[in-house]
Amino acid sequence: MPSARRISILRAMTDPRYTPLVQTLPATVPFVGPEVQERDMGQTFRARLGANENVFGPSPHAIVAMEREAAQIWKYADATNFDLKAALSAKLGCSPENLIFGEGIDGLLGYLVRLLVSQGDRVVTSDGAYPTFNYHVTGFGGALVKVPYRDDREDLPALIAKAVEVDAKIVYLANPDNPMGSWHSGAEIEAAVETLPDGTLLVLDEAYVEFAPADAVPAIDVQDPRVIRMRTFSKGYGMAGARVGYGIGAADLIRSFDKIRNHFGMNRAAQVGALAALQDEIWLQDVIAQVNAAKVRIGQIAAANGLNALPSAANFVAVDCGRDGDFARAVLRALVARGIFVRMPFVAPQDRCIRISAGTPKDLDALAEVLPLALEEARAGVSA
Amino acid sequence: MPSARRISILRAMTDPRYTPLVQTLPATVPFVGPEVQERDMGQTFRARLGANENVFGPSPHAIVAMEREAAQIWKYADATNFDLKAALSAKLGCSPENLIFGEGIDGLLGYLVRLLVSQGDRVVTSDGAYPTFNYHVTGFGGALVKVPYRDDREDLPALIAKAVEVDAKIVYLANPDNPMGSWHSGAEIEAAVETLPDGTLLVLDEAYVEFAPADAVPAIDVQDPRVIRMRTFSKGYGMAGARVGYGIGAADLIRSFDKIRNHFGMNRAAQVGALAALQDEIWLQDVIAQVNAAKVRIGQIAAANGLNALPSAANFVAVDCGRDGDFARAVLRALVARGIFVRMPFVAPQDRCIRISAGTPKDLDALAEVLPLALEEARAGVSA
Repeated sequence: MPSARRISILRAMTDPRYTPLVQTLPATVPFVGPEVQERDMGQTFRARLGANENVFGPSPHAIVAMEREAAQIWKYADATNFDLKAALSAKLGCSPENLIFGEGIDGLLGYLVRLLVSQGDRVVTSDGAYPTFNYHVTGFGGALVKVPYRDDREDLPALIAKAVEVDAKIVYLANPDNPMGSWHSGAEIEAAVETLPDGTLLVLDEAYVEFAPADAVPAIDVQDPRVIRMRTFSKGYGMAGARVGYGIGAADLIRSFDKIRNHFGMNRAAQVGALAALQDEIWLQDVIAQVNAAKVRIGQIAAANGLNALPSAANFVAVDCGRDGDFARAVLRALVARGIFVRMPFVAPQDRCIRISAGTPKDLDALAEVLPLALEEARAGVSA
Repeated sequence: MPSARRISILRAMTDPRYTPLVQTLPATVPFVGPEVQERDMGQTFRARLGANENVFGPSPHAIVAMEREAAQIWKYADATNFDLKAALSAKLGCSPENLIFGEGIDGLLGYLVRLLVSQGDRVVTSDGAYPTFNYHVTGFGGALVKVPYRDDREDLPALIAKAVEVDAKIVYLANPDNPMGSWHSGAEIEAAVETLPDGTLLVLDEAYVEFAPADAVPAIDVQDPRVIRMRTFSKGYGMAGARVGYGIGAADLIRSFDKIRNHFGMNRAAQVGALAALQDEIWLQDVIAQVNAAKVRIGQIAAANGLNALPSAANFVAVDCGRDGDFARAVLRALVARGIFVRMPFVAPQDRCIRISAGTPKDLDALAEVLPLALEEARAGVSA
């Protein structure tokens, strides 16, 4: 074995040669997970309401399917996701060739950016929208151009105007939006698609679509090459830890993922779980009802504390803490310190809010108990 | 909704603008999976011996752990893989910061290539070695430089000489090798590392290391910046469908994966399954014994048919069919048509062999039954 001194010399001589792009990238993490916070705090959270997970969980049929598949995990998964594509295409009324599955929407966004974005290519998004999309754009050398929210909604006309102005390869819109829970009508999005400049792809992130009102879902021909929709089993279907996302788009675009994706990236048990979840519409509707009830309760808890809950078409609620970002951050810290895992928007003025995911009644009991204390602490701390 | 004619016009106008690199890439699939072949044939395989899966499966403790986690799948996994890193670093005697986990070695190879390879950068591998590595190199614009096998082994001195010659950023070596099962001694690899040119990273793919003799495992300081080792839970630990691979390397290199990886790409149940598998050394040793017995049996079946099984340090055996690639391909086709899933090397003269994964006694009974018929058919067909 080389000596320590030898290694020290060798390192200087022989570090791997990173690409020029990689040398410019920070070693960021888009999100710090609750487990990391729990280890740092030395205690577990009482209520896990920060990552927009679905606390009501997947269909019992999905759980059974995954349990049964555990003993079959020695086999690689079907890299073509044939069964999932067959079931989902039948449900959506499209062809399997309009569907791409991958390791969550996060994974698919990474692949999509890689397909389209070279060094310096412009990509338009809202200032304060999904950080993992930004992470991928930066990671492939793209230039992010950000448009402010307007009235706590993504500003769709301004996003498209900016895409025209900078000749963007991609414009990103989440509908419903995360972190605000706001949304556009399907008609607004359909009209906006008609104003997209040539060669700009709209990435319509519909991660929360199952919770949205029906009229918030645009009718877009799956073969329309101007749009790709991203959806997931992480939210409505309660399978965030499984990592199953999918894209819906024109066959040419969908096929291009096969040029670059990790073909064997998906977990075999996750595939059968998602298939079973997809077929349990009753469970999905029941979860949506429970989420809606939880959102009402969050609104009541906010009101009882003099705070305003914003309307939400997702499985979380942005609660306006009524002052500035520093105050909301103090509220968030006080909640976290008392065992309530929540997150909040990154950018002003949306950062006057904290974002609370729909929880079980017990989770929300804990929130109701702790929120007054957190507000008191924040008011004392910020005014001190 | 736009009419079909309208869409047709739109498509021409507004196709997404792929990167120049992506436009050059074929929509390849590194491997056609057995499920695809089964659907094409309209029947399932009697014996699944083509993908070097571990038919003996994971530890029962891992199965139980994954079953139990199914109901917890609503939670995202810990993106830092803290528990897995803690257990594995203790086992390996390194620091957690020397370990990176990802969606199989396939996923990690993709990230590694992305970290190092820009358009035109040279990467050296053996002609006929792991296609998925080549897929990633090509996918990031790298220039593959291939070195022939020598005596059915990767030619380590020639690989390094070629890396010097072309100023390679990466040189790839699988030890034990796939598809041939041959191997180098640890001492040979240690000596070769000392001859690596400055700035060339050796990717040592040890996917099959659990099956290899102890003296085939080189002693390499984990902080040596010239080498990264790739290992997996897919082979020895019997969890191919879970997608858990890991890299062992210098902390700087390991940390750089956090610049680009899909932080939330891994499945939560897979994490706990891998952790349980790692702790069941008795099961692992039992699996290795069963694999070794299966390899002996494959050798006997080969000999009984006048064929020669090559020595193997992996969980599969390359069986020399005694003639050229066309003949071996005919044997393979005849086996597949009779329900025996096997694969074979892509490149001459290694393509005179078929590659048979270790199977259960029942799998190998099927092989013993079918191989004579397949050989007969191949002899008739090729000489016809």
